[in-house]
Amino acid sequence: MKKKTRSKAEKKMRNYRKKSGLPPGSLVYTGSAEGETKLRLISFDKDSVTQSEKGNIREMAGQIAPGRNNWLSVTGLNDTEQIRLIGEQFGIHPLLLEDALNTDSFPKIEDTSDTLFISLKMLSWKNENRSIASEQISFILGKDFILSFEERPNELFERERQRLLNGPEKTREKGPDFLAYILIDQIIDNYFLVLGEIEDRIEETEMDLLNDSDEVTPLQMMHLKKQLIMFRKFIYPLRDAVRKLQRDDSALIDRKTLRYVNDLYDHLQNIIQNLESFRDITTGLMDLYSNSLSNRLNSIMKTLTVIGAIFIPLTFIAGIYGMNFANMPELNHPLAYPAVLVFMLLIAIAMIIWMKRKKWF
Amino acid sequence: MKKKTRSKAEKKMRNYRKKSGLPPGSLVYTGSAEGETKLRLISFDKDSVTQSEKGNIREMAGQIAPGRNNWLSVTGLNDTEQIRLIGEQFGIHPLLLEDALNTDSFPKIEDTSDTLFISLKMLSWKNENRSIASEQISFILGKDFILSFEERPNELFERERQRLLNGPEKTREKGPDFLAYILIDQIIDNYFLVLGEIEDRIEETEMDLLNDSDEVTPLQMMHLKKQLIMFRKFIYPLRDAVRKLQRDDSALIDRKTLRYVNDLYDHLQNIIQNLESFRDITTGLMDLYSNSLSNRLNSIMKTLTVIGAIFIPLTFIAGIYGMNFANMPELNHPLAYPAVLVFMLLIAIAMIIWMKRKKWF
Amino acid sequence: MKKKTRSKAEKKMRNYRKKSGLPPGSLVYTGSAEGETKLRLISFDKDSVTQSEKGNIREMAGQIAPGRNNWLSVTGLNDTEQIRLIGEQFGIHPLLLEDALNTDSFPKIEDTSDTLFISLKMLSWKNENRSIASEQISFILGKDFILSFEERPNELFERERQRLLNGPEKTREKGPDFLAYILIDQIIDNYFLVLGEIEDRIEETEMDLLNDSDEVTPLQMMHLKKQLIMFRKFIYPLRDAVRKLQRDDSALIDRKTLRYVNDLYDHLQNIIQNLESFRDITTGLMDLYSNSLSNRLNSIMKTLTVIGAIFIPLTFIAGIYGMNFANMPELNHPLAYPAVLVFMLLIAIAMIIWMKRKKWF
Amino acid sequence: MKKKTRSKAEKKMRNYRKKSGLPPGSLVYTGSAEGETKLRLISFDKDSVTQSEKGNIREMAGQIAPGRNNWLSVTGLNDTEQIRLIGEQFGIHPLLLEDALNTDSFPKIEDTSDTLFISLKMLSWKNENRSIASEQISFILGKDFILSFEERPNELFERERQRLLNGPEKTREKGPDFLAYILIDQIIDNYFLVLGEIEDRIEETEMDLLNDSDEVTPLQMMHLKKQLIMFRKFIYPLRDAVRKLQRDDSALIDRKTLRYVNDLYDHLQNIIQNLESFRDITTGLMDLYSNSLSNRLNSIMKTLTVIGAIFIPLTFIAGIYGMNFANMPELNHPLAYPAVLVFMLLIAIAMIIWMKRKKWF
Amino acid sequence: MKKKTRSKAEKKMRNYRKKSGLPPGSLVYTGSAEGETKLRLISFDKDSVTQSEKGNIREMAGQIAPGRNNWLSVTGLNDTEQIRLIGEQFGIHPLLLEDALNTDSFPKIEDTSDTLFISLKMLSWKNENRSIASEQISFILGKDFILSFEERPNELFERERQRLLNGPEKTREKGPDFLAYILIDQIIDNYFLVLGEIEDRIEETEMDLLNDSDEVTPLQMMHLKKQLIMFRKFIYPLRDAVRKLQRDDSALIDRKTLRYVNDLYDHLQNIIQNLESFRDITTGLMDLYSNSLSNRLNSIMKTLTVIGAIFIPLTFIAGIYGMNFANMPELNHPLAYPAVLVFMLLIAIAMIIWMKRKKWF
Repeated sequence: MKKKTRSKAEKKMRNYRKKSGLPPGSLVYTGSAEGETKLRLISFDKDSVTQSEKGNIREMAGQIAPGRNNWLSVTGLNDTEQIRLIGEQFGIHPLLLEDALNTDSFPKIEDTSDTLFISLKMLSWKNENRSIASEQISFILGKDFILSFEERPNELFERERQRLLNGPEKTREKGPDFLAYILIDQIIDNYFLVLGEIEDRIEETEMDLLNDSDEVTPLQMMHLKKQLIMFRKFIYPLRDAVRKLQRDDSALIDRKTLRYVNDLYDHLQNIIQNLESFRDITTGLMDLYSNSLSNRLNSIMKTLTVIGAIFIPLTFIAGIYGMNFANMPELNHPLAYPAVLVFMLLIAIAMIIWMKRKKWF
Repeated sequence: MKKKTRSKAEKKMRNYRKKSGLPPGSLVYTGSAEGETKLRLISFDKDSVTQSEKGNIREMAGQIAPGRNNWLSVTGLNDTEQIRLIGEQFGIHPLLLEDALNTDSFPKIEDTSDTLFISLKMLSWKNENRSIASEQISFILGKDFILSFEERPNELFERERQRLLNGPEKTREKGPDFLAYILIDQIIDNYFLVLGEIEDRIEETEMDLLNDSDEVTPLQMMHLKKQLIMFRKFIYPLRDAVRKLQRDDSALIDRKTLRYVNDLYDHLQNIIQNLESFRDITTGLMDLYSNSLSNRLNSIMKTLTVIGAIFIPLTFIAGIYGMNFANMPELNHPLAYPAVLVFMLLIAIAMIIWMKRKKWF
Repeated sequence: MKKKTRSKAEKKMRNYRKKSGLPPGSLVYTGSAEGETKLRLISFDKDSVTQSEKGNIREMAGQIAPGRNNWLSVTGLNDTEQIRLIGEQFGIHPLLLEDALNTDSFPKIEDTSDTLFISLKMLSWKNENRSIASEQISFILGKDFILSFEERPNELFERERQRLLNGPEKTREKGPDFLAYILIDQIIDNYFLVLGEIEDRIEETEMDLLNDSDEVTPLQMMHLKKQLIMFRKFIYPLRDAVRKLQRDDSALIDRKTLRYVNDLYDHLQNIIQNLESFRDITTGLMDLYSNSLSNRLNSIMKTLTVIGAIFIPLTFIAGIYGMNFANMPELNHPLAYPAVLVFMLLIAIAMIIWMKRKKWF
Repeated sequence: MKKKTRSKAEKKMRNYRKKSGLPPGSLVYTGSAEGETKLRLISFDKDSVTQSEKGNIREMAGQIAPGRNNWLSVTGLNDTEQIRLIGEQFGIHPLLLEDALNTDSFPKIEDTSDTLFISLKMLSWKNENRSIASEQISFILGKDFILSFEERPNELFERERQRLLNGPEKTREKGPDFLAYILIDQIIDNYFLVLGEIEDRIEETEMDLLNDSDEVTPLQMMHLKKQLIMFRKFIYPLRDAVRKLQRDDSALIDRKTLRYVNDLYDHLQNIIQNLESFRDITTGLMDLYSNSLSNRLNSIMKTLTVIGAIFIPLTFIAGIYGMNFANMPELNHPLAYPAVLVFMLLIAIAMIIWMKRKKWF
Repeated sequence: MKKKTRSKAEKKMRNYRKKSGLPPGSLVYTGSAEGETKLRLISFDKDSVTQSEKGNIREMAGQIAPGRNNWLSVTGLNDTEQIRLIGEQFGIHPLLLEDALNTDSFPKIEDTSDTLFISLKMLSWKNENRSIASEQISFILGKDFILSFEERPNELFERERQRLLNGPEKTREKGPDFLAYILIDQIIDNYFLVLGEIEDRIEETEMDLLNDSDEVTPLQMMHLKKQLIMFRKFIYPLRDAVRKLQRDDSALIDRKTLRYVNDLYDHLQNIIQNLESFRDITTGLMDLYSNSLSNRLNSIMKTLTVIGAIFIPLTFIAGIYGMNFANMPELNHPLAYPAVLVFMLLIAIAMIIWMKRKKWF
């Protein structure tokens, strides 16, 4: 058990050790995904499109067509040397590449004069452990290229690639900035799916609480709350970054694309509003659960008290007549026994009426 | 049960699937209202007014009078092709139409140079399930036209239409911006009604708590709280959008109308202040409920303790004299029995006095 | 009961109906004060002062002296026609008059180029129901006039009027802006009195909690909290409005008067700081009350447990020797009875010592 | 009791009455300090220093040396006429003097073009009632003078005066702005002492909670919390005022002194950070206390339940064999009695094992 | 005990006394580290590097090479006279040196035109008391020098020094601003380690709560919370300071280094986001703990109630037939005894079924 819980600090320590002793800008992949690094280049303009997959940027370099739009997709981030070479090829600042590989970092957008760096998290809902899984995806945008870095091969962008390759001419008209928008829009669309899953979990929990089901445990609620916290942790920085992008008027983003950026911003705001609502509702559920515990305790104690209030006095009376004093004249009266029984009954009835009035049952 | 709670994620998934594979700006209606799309055009200026209802924008196109004020009201959003054609007719950016049809989005105002897009929620109180129902209403404002998009036919704007058609000349003097203000004002007036309903629910709950009524359940309070959360979710973005409108000085809003925009803003601020108060009060009610539970538990346990404290010792004494030892000299004393009874009475009285002093009853 | 709680929504509905069907700027008084509308005009400059009371603005119109300072005080807002005429006389925008009559609105200051509209709440403490009562007071300030609108006749401004009429020349030197400041300052001074009353209530509650008095009920605290919420609801918008006034540099406010506006702002900030403190303290009192409930429960349960722990085992022992087995040799031993009594005593003493160590009493 | 708690509103009312009927700018001392008003003037420049104490500003007027730095220290604020005269002598706006005398006001800094008004609270810790005591101290800064207003004679500034009178030449080189800084720095240094006292109280409380000491009462924690609230109430406005001073670039503050103002600001930020931490910790302590109450209740109820679970069934068994049925064959078996005793023992052991497993003791 | 808790106020008092009576800018080391002050100078440019260790700045002065980059590292801050001399040597404002020595201060960055002062806390996790330890580290940056002040000798910067001395030429190319960045980056890297340790503690606690372990005490959680509070106290001012640095565009920071400053800012934001998450999670754990207490109480009371509900009525029945009335006909019936036993059994079974239905066990 201890072993497991130690792992976070150990992992951080390991990453730290991996990196320490190296100057800033050194490339270390801090994620856990394995698998080799694959490159795929799509070069397109209005008139034509070409695609090539190579394992090596040197072989690919010749195919990068200046003046056309080049989308170099990098999948798997273990081969840091390869990634360094890609950076050199496109003239990327090493710090940006470092950020693309550092999966512990938060979403951000950095605008240097000649490139725009965007990193964000792709979130997905894992039903097996009812948790959000995250993967870091980064984009580096230049005048005539877009680099995308993914930790693992994803289905996510497949459709866009197919459309680029086979779709109508119109889809190839726009530049890398619009392509970046399309890809990010896919990722944010996924956020809505995760949001929907969380909403379902919340409603299930509420329903269970309503039915006083034993399935609800505070640990489950806590787990749900942690998913919300994690979601928030990734989405707030992204929202702020997009807002900055809206305002700063980057040279790399076309005026027309900016309208789409506004759209992204609205989507993110929408998600955040929903997250805040969920947070309030989850807090409310916690209160509800506490109250349901109190209610149960009340009901348990009422039962004990009702039984105690009826039988403890009666037992005492029975005890009285169980005493062995020589001189207890009433014991010999022939009607004493039924009289006592009736008396006991009257006491019990009085108790019950009194408790009914107090609305105890 | 599961089936029902699954539906949110499924619905989102469905909408997502409907939309995915389509480029941005594709028109998909994400709401649940059925019924065909109806168009109604009111063309007016100071001197005259004409109205026509057609099912088809092509037939209607000829009646749109440039230079006059044209109010095209679209009711029912299922016929997305029709809506695309309307967009073309008036030169609306596809993203705006997409927003008008996407009922999952939040209120917003978007100012492109030649159109002003406004979307907001019409809220109404449904007494049957004590919930707020929402419907999305969008406006697109141009120099000489206003398009309104409603999910379902509404009584809400009926009065305004009648006034335009039959009212005094003065009502037709002002442009589409003022008409938009009038319509939005109607919607916001409705918010006050919903606010009043919520206030009533809160007061009912408070009254029930005061009367220690069993009708109050924490789930009801939670439900109320969720209505507040939902209300807030829709009103904050609207307030922010109106504030932006106040500041940005849109070319489509007349200086004179701007004063009315200020008025809208004040109304929204007023609503928000009330919502925040309600939120605080609802939190207070939750605390009140918790305390009332604790109070009840105290009262229950007091009863048990009072009874226990009196009778448990007495029962013990009775038990003593119920023992069968051969040599218990006091058993034979003729006054022993009444003496023990008196002793028991004294103990009971002492207990009662002691507990009275502790203010237990 | 239901009837009463229904009234808020009904009232809002009624006001809404009163107003609906009317264009914006229609004058409807939404308050509950009855009594006829009275006008009183004080015309003053450095050298002289005249006062006239009429029931009708038309008769009064001749006495409004342009160039001199005119204070038209309107008391009772039921005669909306009269108020419309006043608006016409002074050239007031109908929306401002609407705001002056709409008592559901929140404090605000609106600066049109030629008039300054100020509306705020006069608060007073009603001892009979320990609540804050509010009345709306509005001012419209022009170059040479100030209109004041009060729902009911107030003593509040009596002193200022007397000073204007009978005071030294100096008091008549300054313009309507300074007069407005003086009147608002009176209202804000009243806020401090209300603040003091609330502080007293808080201290009473604290004292009662300290004495474990039964007088404290969570409903009382809730009521107190609601007074704070209500106070805040009125004072925050006012503070914001005054801040805007400080910044916007209205043409209607003399540079010298601006310093007094700063003073108002400081007073409001002071009140807000106090309200926030009260809010924190009230929350603390709620916690205190909860804890006192828990403490009482603990003390109740301790009593039951102490009694139970002592007597339940002893009763069992007595029960043993109350059994009717034929062969219970110890029953016949002559010292058995006193030995058992001593044994019981020892058990009781041991229990008491053990519980003393646990600090149960 | 009532009498005492009434006093706050009464005091406010009294101050209000004292002031009401007077125009703004009227001087009323609202504090409670008694004692006559004393004046002390220190006139200094680089080369020389003179000191004089008079009871009357008229006599002192001649000694105020224009061009030199004059520090007029006013101790005791009851003689408002004297203070009015001082204001006239130095050309101070009456509103500023009113603020200096109004001890109900909050810290503020007001920059008129020719004077800088600073008012703040001197805080000190009173061990006898474990409370913060506050006294208002105000400064009015001019080109060549500084006026200081203290409610009571203080040791606080004694050292500075001695240094001015007897210290090295260097201390007299700087102007009134630097002197003001030095004096305010003394006051803020005191804040750190109060902070330290509060920290001690918090640690004591924590220690007591750890030792489950009965000394901790929620009322004590509440009292501590109120001290924090009071502290915050005074320090936030001061921080804001100092920030404004930093930004506004007053003509009365030398560039070189401004760096010291930054230092003050840092000190205040430091204090606020600490206060916020204390606030969080105090909230945590409250939670801790609640939990310790619950823990105790659990432990109490466990005791009762353990005893009940063991003896209630046994007592029932004893009761069975205490019944007087004629036909109870087992009663006559010679081994029945020991067999029942063993049976009882086994039940008790089984109960104890079961409860041990549940970790009840 | 008291003695120990007194120490904070006493220490503050002592520091205060140490400092009081001294003018601002007087140098007093307020930390607790002992050991003598050591100086180490590294003078470097692209081409060469020299290192010297002296105990005295006067001896060292000759080695400070203007035009080259000089890193003077001061370890141990007790010798304030030495530090004053260093200040003189480099022309540092005394207030900055005072801040470097005042370990009670919070992180800050101060930009005078010719020097940049940076002070921050080095944090480390102490496993022995599961607490964060802090040490103040300050930097003063000039055109051609960087002074670093450490309370104790640290391993932290050893690697950087070795790289400067022995590393490739490239590491010596950049100026003091970049060196400062490198050193601060080391400190912030350490923050991540501390963050990881806290995360481990939180997960351990959660795991313990899940296992209903007795090891979790609210005091432990409180302790954890205090570590978070302490961390926040140090990191927020640092973040704000770095943001100011980003914006203010100091002359001492090269454009190229500014990008690295952005990187620092991102790291700090990342840490803050994590701290906020931890804060939410810790609050959640507290709630979880409270709920687990309630759950246990419920389970305890259920046990008592179940036992009571079964045996109290039965004991009463046994009591009835233990009474000694002469005339109790049923006592003599031969089947009465087994009949009563069966009756008792039926009652017990009915009770158990009823409680099973209520899901009590």
